Amino acid sequence: MSQGSINSDLAKERQKATFNVENLSVLLHGGPAKLKRKRYIENLVCEDLFYRQLKPWSYCSIEEQYENALIKHIHAKKQIEKHGIKDRNDLMTYRVSAFPHEADPIGINTSMFIPALEQQGTEEQKANWLPLAHQETIIGTYAQTEIGHGTFLRGLETTATYDPKTKEFVLNTPSLSATKFWPAGLGKTANHCVVVAQLYTQGKCHGIHIFMLQLRSLEDHSLLPGIETGVIGNKFGFGTNDNGYLKLNSVRIPRDNMLMRYSKVLEDGTYIRPENPKVTYGVMVLVRSFIVRNAAVFLAEACTIAIRYSAVRRQSELTPGGIEPQILDYQTQQYRLLPLLSTAYAFHFASTNMTETYERISQQIEGGRLDQLPQLHALAAGLKAFTTYASSAGIEICRICCGGHGYSHASGLPKIYVCAVPGCTYEGENTVMMLQVARYLMKCYRDKQQGRSLPGFVSYIGESMEKKSFMGADVSFTCLIKAYKHRAARLIEEAAKQMQSCIQAGSPAHVAWNKSSVQLFLAANAHCHLFCVENFIDSIRDCKVDSNTLKVLNEVCQLYGVHGIIENLGEFMQDNFLTGQHVDYLQKKMLTLFELMRPNAVALVDAFDFPDHKLESCLGRYDGQVYQALYDYAKMAPMNQTEVHSTYYKHLRPLMSGNSKL
Amino acid sequence: MSQGSINSDLAKERQKATFNVENLSVLLHGGPAKLKRKRYIENLVCEDLFYRQLKPWSYCSIEEQYENALIKHIHAKKQIEKHGIKDRNDLMTYRVSAFPHEADPIGINTSMFIPALEQQGTEEQKANWLPLAHQETIIGTYAQTEIGHGTFLRGLETTATYDPKTKEFVLNTPSLSATKFWPAGLGKTANHCVVVAQLYTQGKCHGIHIFMLQLRSLEDHSLLPGIETGVIGNKFGFGTNDNGYLKLNSVRIPRDNMLMRYSKVLEDGTYIRPENPKVTYGVMVLVRSFIVRNAAVFLAEACTIAIRYSAVRRQSELTPGGIEPQILDYQTQQYRLLPLLSTAYAFHFASTNMTETYERISQQIEGGRLDQLPQLHALAAGLKAFTTYASSAGIEICRICCGGHGYSHASGLPKIYVCAVPGCTYEGENTVMMLQVARYLMKCYRDKQQGRSLPGFVSYIGESMEKKSFMGADVSFTCLIKAYKHRAARLIEEAAKQMQSCIQAGSPAHVAWNKSSVQLFLAANAHCHLFCVENFIDSIRDCKVDSNTLKVLNEVCQLYGVHGIIENLGEFMQDNFLTGQHVDYLQKKMLTLFELMRPNAVALVDAFDFPDHKLESCLGRYDGQVYQALYDYAKMAPMNQTEVHSTYYKHLRPLMSGNSKL
Repeated sequence: MSQGSINSDLAKERQKATFNVENLSVLLHGGPAKLKRKRYIENLVCEDLFYRQLKPWSYCSIEEQYENALIKHIHAKKQIEKHGIKDRNDLMTYRVSAFPHEADPIGINTSMFIPALEQQGTEEQKANWLPLAHQETIIGTYAQTEIGHGTFLRGLETTATYDPKTKEFVLNTPSLSATKFWPAGLGKTANHCVVVAQLYTQGKCHGIHIFMLQLRSLEDHSLLPGIETGVIGNKFGFGTNDNGYLKLNSVRIPRDNMLMRYSKVLEDGTYIRPENPKVTYGVMVLVRSFIVRNAAVFLAEACTIAIRYSAVRRQSELTPGGIEPQILDYQTQQYRLLPLLSTAYAFHFASTNMTETYERISQQIEGGRLDQLPQLHALAAGLKAFTTYASSAGIEICRICCGGHGYSHASGLPKIYVCAVPGCTYEGENTVMMLQVARYLMKCYRDKQQGRSLPGFVSYIGESMEKKSFMGADVSFTCLIKAYKHRAARLIEEAAKQMQSCIQAGSPAHVAWNKSSVQLFLAANAHCHLFCVENFIDSIRDCKVDSNTLKVLNEVCQLYGVHGIIENLGEFMQDNFLTGQHVDYLQKKMLTLFELMRPNAVALVDAFDFPDHKLESCLGRYDGQVYQALYDYAKMAPMNQTEVHSTYYKHLRPLMSGNSKL
Repeated sequence: MSQGSINSDLAKERQKATFNVENLSVLLHGGPAKLKRKRYIENLVCEDLFYRQLKPWSYCSIEEQYENALIKHIHAKKQIEKHGIKDRNDLMTYRVSAFPHEADPIGINTSMFIPALEQQGTEEQKANWLPLAHQETIIGTYAQTEIGHGTFLRGLETTATYDPKTKEFVLNTPSLSATKFWPAGLGKTANHCVVVAQLYTQGKCHGIHIFMLQLRSLEDHSLLPGIETGVIGNKFGFGTNDNGYLKLNSVRIPRDNMLMRYSKVLEDGTYIRPENPKVTYGVMVLVRSFIVRNAAVFLAEACTIAIRYSAVRRQSELTPGGIEPQILDYQTQQYRLLPLLSTAYAFHFASTNMTETYERISQQIEGGRLDQLPQLHALAAGLKAFTTYASSAGIEICRICCGGHGYSHASGLPKIYVCAVPGCTYEGENTVMMLQVARYLMKCYRDKQQGRSLPGFVSYIGESMEKKSFMGADVSFTCLIKAYKHRAARLIEEAAKQMQSCIQAGSPAHVAWNKSSVQLFLAANAHCHLFCVENFIDSIRDCKVDSNTLKVLNEVCQLYGVHGIIENLGEFMQDNFLTGQHVDYLQKKMLTLFELMRPNAVALVDAFDFPDHKLESCLGRYDGQVYQALYDYAKMAPMNQTEVHSTYYKHLRPLMSGNSKL
């Protein structure tokens, strides 16, 4: 892209901001040292000519995308070594900077294969395999999902049957629906995997366990006997990743290939069950906390693109015959974008909280205290579902807000969307996640009714509360929190009562559950929403930042709370907690907040501090030279490398002369 | 895909339907003769080996997609001729069947270039160009949108300056932002276009006019002097279409190339203005009515895929330890899919109404009566925006409801989505459309206040109405319509009052408009929603169909009305028109309707009568053999044609041995 001066509209936006962007960036990134380090690492990628000379991803075929991802992986590995990057956060910064919104086909070796070995393997197993996996001689993946089975792990069909005669497990895919499907890197890259299968020994099934399986020869990468694998075919996104399938036909592996840190199968086939099966929850929670962070980041990126573009784009007229205004000056555009911006901030703070909570509770778990695990698990499942839904829907709104150009890959937005939206599905389908939260909330509700006290962030459940809101025209934080608490508590109670009335009408518990699951879903959703609002308010109450920045953050936070009520108004009004008068206050406050936030909109997205090379967007560039960038993007298209395309001679010319021979 | 028997779950679903699917299909397709004809034409495509032997679209590169589209266009043209297909509807049936969810790069020649000539050209111009355009010697496109200018036509910058000395127009792209951008087929296919430009003559600008411009030589397709064009680069979807850009550098065209049916420039440069500029509204309305129809069809297709798959897919457990249930049995899945199914039906009837209204009013316009034009224009703009928003968001929900497999191109859903969602943007950006409806509604409101009567479907505005709903537990159609009317009337009144209060506070009218535009948007949205509900109820009240089918249609219709209130509850409760008691009725009714509709869900999507080759979906197949189809799709992937991919030798082997040289 051509380098130029800053678009004058964007320059003016930055001048008129009422706060210091750098101060906010420092706050968002955890202090000046961390922000500096982040920029240093992003800059390594930005200045590395190697990345810049690769063909732009959107002009690559699937095979080119895959190959480029391998090339990038190898290059990144060397650079990471060369620059001595070792810290977990630094590594992640480098990788998301080098692989923006795309998957590294070898990434799963680090993100899931190695952690599975570390957590489930015995010391000998770890000593055997981990060094090879770290040096990427063994390239592993995690083969769990099957073509007919996803989130419900007990439904998996793949079998591992112990044969005491040879002291081996025999792995099989007993039906078409048992075919492993979707694991990243499984199609063409991985030479090993951990495979999740139903363990049979001494004629009995002991449920799912994890086994190490070599897929391909380390000599020539050919498939080992009994193994069929390949890619699953092209997808909405993730072209860089060879998601694959796997069929097993009586594949024999040594007994030692079962990961036996917890469960064991002895030589004679005796099964030893694990002491505490809950210990393995940890990874799941950690992975979900990454998804929450990504949901926050993806939405923030989309807002950055749409808001910068809306400051540059001029369209139609406000004053008759006057200059075309920046589209960000239209109230309808503010209505679509500013609440999303506030959501991105809310999710940022939610993600920060979740990471901290995870670390705190993890230490307790390591120390053998498991009492906070259900709470952590519910938080992770709920926030994962709540943020990925809102983030992916929000990204599409940002894209549509960019008009026609949003539809071009030049905008960068389609790639962000197709990278974000699978978060609604993988690592626990969102509806299932929400219902898990609901199960936890129902347990809390019962506990409270039986006089037990509840942990911090669910303590509002079953409390007696005001029947009406005291909200005034100022719409205070206190009144916002009370409103969200009231709504969540009411919906939880309603769901519990609906369950009860189904049971009283004669339904078994599981039928009552299903018949109440819409209510349960809404209750869980309201609980997660409350968490995000209350946590946002708490986070900025405690934060150390100058008063100008704090004032702006307060506005953003208030908009998040106000808009969330307006969007879900019925749930707040149904029992008259909020009345028409309150709604009037809320609507007026929302419009006032739009006016207050409008001058800071660009500065608020600048504070996220995304480098241009990570956004990959002609519309979201820091310099705002959008039309030149779109034109340059067009010129690069492979089809533009000849004036007359080859199809003219083959097809158009005969058509034009009426002589097509097809 | 392999052929097999019908999946037993799907077969059972079809057996237990309470109505005759064929009867409903006949109703939806306008009678037995039309349904038969539709099937006959679809079958021509289905049985044509030519289409089947093409490489599946999702495995094609962009250039292959484009080339295949040209090949298909040429083949389709011959088949259409061979089978003597001439009726406009039949042609459309053939084309959408042969080009499912993709654009024909020559299609715009028929859909916009020729109609522009027909409507704006003089008799001589038509005689000159139309025969050549029909035989596709001239391949034209419609060059309107510019890189910096979209929906707001007055903002276009391209100039056509008349030079009386040579009796020519000189066409110019005066700036980067004036570059024509997005026109279909402009990049590599078209050799002509009509170009929309600001007309200058005798030193004065007369606004935008349309000019015929030859882009490329008819001898060798090379670009003519002063013309720069090319594709705009890859996009979210529409890979088959070479959307292009165009820059003009003092390109001279004869005076006769201005389309002069209405406006004229005489030889000396005198400008003659048109008698009635409104006449040209017709095409715009027609195109928008097609978009509404497509929105209905796309959503119906997505529902077909998601509901059939949800009947085949089994997951988790309802009864502890029991068989995994069909996911369609989960209330949460019904909550997501059944309201969308009802929406697809509502939009079907809305589209039918709109087409009929268009034809009726068009005849009046031809006869010189223009009084109903504003009403028609508002209906078209509003329904276009309302249906495309809801349809595209709904398609994504359907896709996510299919879990991981929904993300694969094998599901067919991503292609439907990327084909549907641009409908929110093109032919009038949706927010702008909604605000045009609002402008019409504000005029109606003023008219009513001044004692004038309003035309049929806006006559409710400003009427005195009940202050409270009389809705009972049965939730009658009458009470539903009253509720939607009340909400729309109230929001229209509120928007009008807000405008007024802004004006009284000293804002100029255009500022007041912008400051009220969120309210105006909501008012227009409520009006369109009312139209869809009322029209659905009216349509089935009058329809001739057996009583079993009618009963089911009534349930679908009631769900559409009930769910729409629940989703927008605040707007119905804000002035206490609906109370908590009503909400209770509505929620219970919704759950009851889920139970009533559940046994008919598959039959209701079967009635849409989409052939498999049009859905292009492994998950939505009529026979329900989804896992075999997914596996077959995977096997076809180009990357699976070798066991060891070429990248192994180039990249993986050196990596694994620690010898990468990159």
